[in-house]
Amino acid sequence: MIKMDIIFRPIGIIHTPYTEKAPYQPVTNDKGIFYIEVQTNYIKGLQGLEKFRYIFVIFYIDRLKKKGDINIVQPPWVDNMKVGVFASRSPHRPNPIGLSIVKLKKIEDNRIYTSGLDVFNNTPLLDIKPYIQDLDAKIDANYGWLQFNNRDDKEHLLLHIKGVPH
Amino acid sequence: MIKMDIIFRPIGIIHTPYTEKAPYQPVTNDKGIFYIEVQTNYIKGLQGLEKFRYIFVIFYIDRLKKKGDINIVQPPWVDNMKVGVFASRSPHRPNPIGLSIVKLKKIEDNRIYTSGLDVFNNTPLLDIKPYIQDLDAKIDANYGWLQFNNRDDKEHLLLHIKGVPH
Repeated sequence: MIKMDIIFRPIGIIHTPYTEKAPYQPVTNDKGIFYIEVQTNYIKGLQGLEKFRYIFVIFYIDRLKKKGDINIVQPPWVDNMKVGVFASRSPHRPNPIGLSIVKLKKIEDNRIYTSGLDVFNNTPLLDIKPYIQDLDAKIDANYGWLQFNNRDDKEHLLLHIKGVPH
Repeated sequence: MIKMDIIFRPIGIIHTPYTEKAPYQPVTNDKGIFYIEVQTNYIKGLQGLEKFRYIFVIFYIDRLKKKGDINIVQPPWVDNMKVGVFASRSPHRPNPIGLSIVKLKKIEDNRIYTSGLDVFNNTPLLDIKPYIQDLDAKIDANYGWLQFNNRDDKEHLLLHIKGVPH
């Protein structure tokens, strides 16, 4: 197997209202102001991004508390259920790389305003990529091990999955 | 702005038929064998992943040739068009992090067999995440600056975008 150190550097900072607690997943209609502040030397790299409705935001998950077996995750909303870390979106991963898909609202200078982001304030930004319909919207995607018994159950469980108080 | 070195380490290797040239984007019906070999100490982390139809594959883009202005990209299929790097999926990025969404075919021990991956053979793997329908399939996503005049034009341009010979 390959052994190497791969070094990345932040290209900006993500600003959110969250300092103590954040949703587990992006919440589209989340309240508050969410924006990504890109380092000024990368402003030119944003050209054309404003035409996309959705973007991928890739960030460094820099605040982690939990220790233990990195391979196994217990979803916080189910008792006695354990899944592998790569079958989950848990932030506690071998490489703490975060990925969120959010709506792009507007770009002003080096600030990209978005819909709700599921990260703590001042999270280091690693990359932004455009979300392109044919490539990225897989309409035949499924829910894997996430089981829904009925529609109400699904809506409710999705609130848990996203970490939305209800 | 934050200045720090963020260090990640490969958790596996991606195997593809590509050594000289690779598609620009994943090609679902691509020929050849594509599999991700996860380090054996992470096998337990794959538990439950087999239930997902699609996965996100996050990797280190370790073979880059081009130099020059990192902010501006010229799409290879259009003359005289330039866009910002963050409005593109170009591999030449400030942090060379690759993201591909592929179909999961089967998992055998530490090998995850997938549909076509757009990377060179032996590319270092950084992370795998499940693609979850409600969270990730944005059916109202658009194509940003990618312009299509008609349906034939769209199909044709998508071949260019994916880097499929035709």
